[in-house]
Amino acid sequence: MAAEWKSILECKAFDDLEKLSSDAYDLTEEGALNTGRLKGYVCRGPMFDLLYPCQRVSGEVLDALQSLADECDLVGQFEQMRAGAVMNRIEGYPSEERQVLHTACRDLFAGNPANKDATEEAKAELAKLKAFLAELENGSICNEQGERFTSLVQIGIGGSDLGPRSIYEALKSYAVPGREVFFLSNVDPDDSTAVLEKIDLARALVLVVSKSGSTLETLTNESIVRAALLKNGLDPARHCVAVTGVSSPMDNPDRYLCSFYLFDYIGGRFSSTSMVGAVMLGFALGYEQLLEFLEGAARMDMAATGRDIRENLPLLLALLGVWNHNFLRMGTVAVLPYSQALHRFPAHLQQCDMESNGKSVQRNSGRVQLRSGPVVWGEPGTNGQHAFYQLLHQGTEDVAVEFIGFRNCQRHGDMVVDGSTSQQKLLANLLAQSVALATGKKDSNPNRNFDGNRVSLLLIAEQLTPAAMGALLALYEAKIVFQGFCWNINSFDQEGVQLGKLLSTRFLSLMKEKESTETLEGDFMTAAGLK
Amino acid sequence: MAAEWKSILECKAFDDLEKLSSDAYDLTEEGALNTGRLKGYVCRGPMFDLLYPCQRVSGEVLDALQSLADECDLVGQFEQMRAGAVMNRIEGYPSEERQVLHTACRDLFAGNPANKDATEEAKAELAKLKAFLAELENGSICNEQGERFTSLVQIGIGGSDLGPRSIYEALKSYAVPGREVFFLSNVDPDDSTAVLEKIDLARALVLVVSKSGSTLETLTNESIVRAALLKNGLDPARHCVAVTGVSSPMDNPDRYLCSFYLFDYIGGRFSSTSMVGAVMLGFALGYEQLLEFLEGAARMDMAATGRDIRENLPLLLALLGVWNHNFLRMGTVAVLPYSQALHRFPAHLQQCDMESNGKSVQRNSGRVQLRSGPVVWGEPGTNGQHAFYQLLHQGTEDVAVEFIGFRNCQRHGDMVVDGSTSQQKLLANLLAQSVALATGKKDSNPNRNFDGNRVSLLLIAEQLTPAAMGALLALYEAKIVFQGFCWNINSFDQEGVQLGKLLSTRFLSLMKEKESTETLEGDFMTAAGLK
Repeated sequence: MAAEWKSILECKAFDDLEKLSSDAYDLTEEGALNTGRLKGYVCRGPMFDLLYPCQRVSGEVLDALQSLADECDLVGQFEQMRAGAVMNRIEGYPSEERQVLHTACRDLFAGNPANKDATEEAKAELAKLKAFLAELENGSICNEQGERFTSLVQIGIGGSDLGPRSIYEALKSYAVPGREVFFLSNVDPDDSTAVLEKIDLARALVLVVSKSGSTLETLTNESIVRAALLKNGLDPARHCVAVTGVSSPMDNPDRYLCSFYLFDYIGGRFSSTSMVGAVMLGFALGYEQLLEFLEGAARMDMAATGRDIRENLPLLLALLGVWNHNFLRMGTVAVLPYSQALHRFPAHLQQCDMESNGKSVQRNSGRVQLRSGPVVWGEPGTNGQHAFYQLLHQGTEDVAVEFIGFRNCQRHGDMVVDGSTSQQKLLANLLAQSVALATGKKDSNPNRNFDGNRVSLLLIAEQLTPAAMGALLALYEAKIVFQGFCWNINSFDQEGVQLGKLLSTRFLSLMKEKESTETLEGDFMTAAGLK
Repeated sequence: MAAEWKSILECKAFDDLEKLSSDAYDLTEEGALNTGRLKGYVCRGPMFDLLYPCQRVSGEVLDALQSLADECDLVGQFEQMRAGAVMNRIEGYPSEERQVLHTACRDLFAGNPANKDATEEAKAELAKLKAFLAELENGSICNEQGERFTSLVQIGIGGSDLGPRSIYEALKSYAVPGREVFFLSNVDPDDSTAVLEKIDLARALVLVVSKSGSTLETLTNESIVRAALLKNGLDPARHCVAVTGVSSPMDNPDRYLCSFYLFDYIGGRFSSTSMVGAVMLGFALGYEQLLEFLEGAARMDMAATGRDIRENLPLLLALLGVWNHNFLRMGTVAVLPYSQALHRFPAHLQQCDMESNGKSVQRNSGRVQLRSGPVVWGEPGTNGQHAFYQLLHQGTEDVAVEFIGFRNCQRHGDMVVDGSTSQQKLLANLLAQSVALATGKKDSNPNRNFDGNRVSLLLIAEQLTPAAMGALLALYEAKIVFQGFCWNINSFDQEGVQLGKLLSTRFLSLMKEKESTETLEGDFMTAAGLK
């Protein structure tokens, strides 16, 4: 099957797009942003609309991108992935050789799931979780004093941290009153000290998340928290809960109140809708809102299976990104949510995108001949406007901007100041930035001149609810997967992190020894003042 | 004076560097990281050492960079700036025409400050602050119930937010017990609602920071907080403190307990050591630790005045960046602190760097012919290792990495797990990443092959103290200024943010009207579902 896969470079449409890119749509021309374009360049998906009039695309470009999608069978590959094909592999070489089934975690609402076995496993874990949450609520699971747990500290790193943390931040307005979640990830001892100071350990569940059960940072932080529990006269086995692989070293009922499982076919950075995110979200939001979140994601997954790129929101988002990156040769992607609740979402995307697509080897083991995954970064607006937008408007670096906005805020607390609400001010700024980047403005003072023709797109939804957050997460997951297909890379492994791990054990053993050695490592440590 | 300034492109050394770049030092060769290099490529500055053996530079390249620095008179320009030259200008066109004297805020410790007037003004504000802090402490300034203030909420955005916030996060381990600081920046109503929920307003000082006294977001949030104070039966004039320009609309004793001033010659993103950061830091850390912070910054400023690039830490950091960006044509700069306390520092640098140097016009009003300021991004390690490091090691994008580390952690709470402390694990990972990026590792499995030759540098200090934080801040401020000089741009204005502001008022008036109009703006709003 893999032999059939090809990169966009091998597509007939690639050359067409190269030609079209030399004369891409000019957003600065008189009438470039006309009524037809503003109303027509909109893709309406589940909960989110994608507005893309400020992309440098024409109908011809969209047609060619459609051909690209068809030639590479992007949607077909997505369907194969959902059905359980072994997409995580490199042909001809040892590789992880795994299915990629994070979508099965939320494929719960259709009569006929794409992969029945994985969805059954997901349902079994959810049923366990539902029962566990009920026991927390009715007090049959409680602390040493018979009190209910009021907080949860999630110990994990990377995929076991950034996704869940950014989603919790996004949705904590909807938390069950009196419940709070903390996260501990970094091996920096100042991080654990600071987190422990904030928590009432007696009332805290400690959720330790590691698929392998052997992640250095996570086990270290778990040891620190267990020591703190003991020091406070508490029994770790009454407080600690595990999310891990079946029969990993952490799958141990003597040490954990309960173990929830995740499976080999779910990669860390795609695991937010598995138990990695679900246990924490179930605790914070309650089981019903967790289901809403999962259903939002499921709806977006379904939308990703349509063949028409103008109607398939994740696919269109992916292809516009490819157009900007590979044809217009833009450098980086800035994800700029006009919602403070999404303040950590760009960091999660940075992980999910860059760890997935920061690759140089194709699935057929050949070297990629195109630029693969870009650098992804971002901060919430309007804050960013007072920070780095100067470069977006007048700098020499080309940035592809992805705005995210909501028609309404989450909480009741908005107020009219100077005739408008804060939400109106926020949205006015959001739309204005898109237009300013696109049209620019001529000025005889060169320092006040705006060249314009800088691209952006806008994802907008009614409100940042649990369902919308699920949809947004699945949207970006699918975008990343589609782009990986375009470059014909394996978006699901992370061999690039191995060398650093290996070398760190060498440095660590030198540090333990405290003797100087005349190796590269020893010299480096001496220069750094660490010997 | 400006007519003498030139960009590096006009320097003789530029061509030498171009030639040298085609055969830049290869970090993957056998013995490339040898003892001599590891021990010799170190620049020891105030508190911080810069280790740069993993840069692709040779002695010849360093010599040519020295020539570049000399030809452009980078240090001379820095001295002129400190002395009060009008560096914020564009020749032949209306521009801000201002001095640039943020360094004067900390030029307090030498007998002979570079600009006496500005330092006198800084001293006067500090004296006011010292008295104010004493009155807070002895209770002569107190709340309606005669209680002392225990928290402070800083309302500001951009330069009045990111710098102070990142420094507070870095140093809050050193806070006076019982004092806490909150920040409110975004006009998103969910941000103000969330912040207000966390604060006991009765015991809170409200520090409103806006140089112009007219920043939309800040005034809106101030109105919201004032309304909340009134609703709680509190008198805003007893709680609110202003940091603003002399005789700005906010310089009003009827509305504020006290006004601290900042001056035209201090740009927002360079204002952390002015009253913009000092009032909050004085409250949080006490006056003595504020002085330590300022002294750290002053020491780094002094180090920036040396002519030898191998001894001038900020200048060397700047020139290595120029070498990577303009000669090795690397895309972005990742700032990766191995310290959770610095988690917001990359966001501050993103602002300070990209708003300063994201420009396309030279100071002589000509267009820049080189790439100016890069995209700057980053997250703390080891977290990043489990996120985007895959791309750093094996991606197609070239990233110039700047690691920051500390030999010791801030707090007492470290613990030996598996024979090593967390701090040792953290540092072992830090050093290992540098070596892994540089040397790579050949593997017959192409997916497990590391090309190497990827550049990084390491800034390392003993501990993240107030003084070290001051030094780190001043180090990056000076780096940014030196790079602006290299590109011959005005790093001190931000004309690029004006167009968005202008357009947002148009959208805002449409939103207030609630009528549809057949303008670009109206059509865009309709498409976005906002009409």
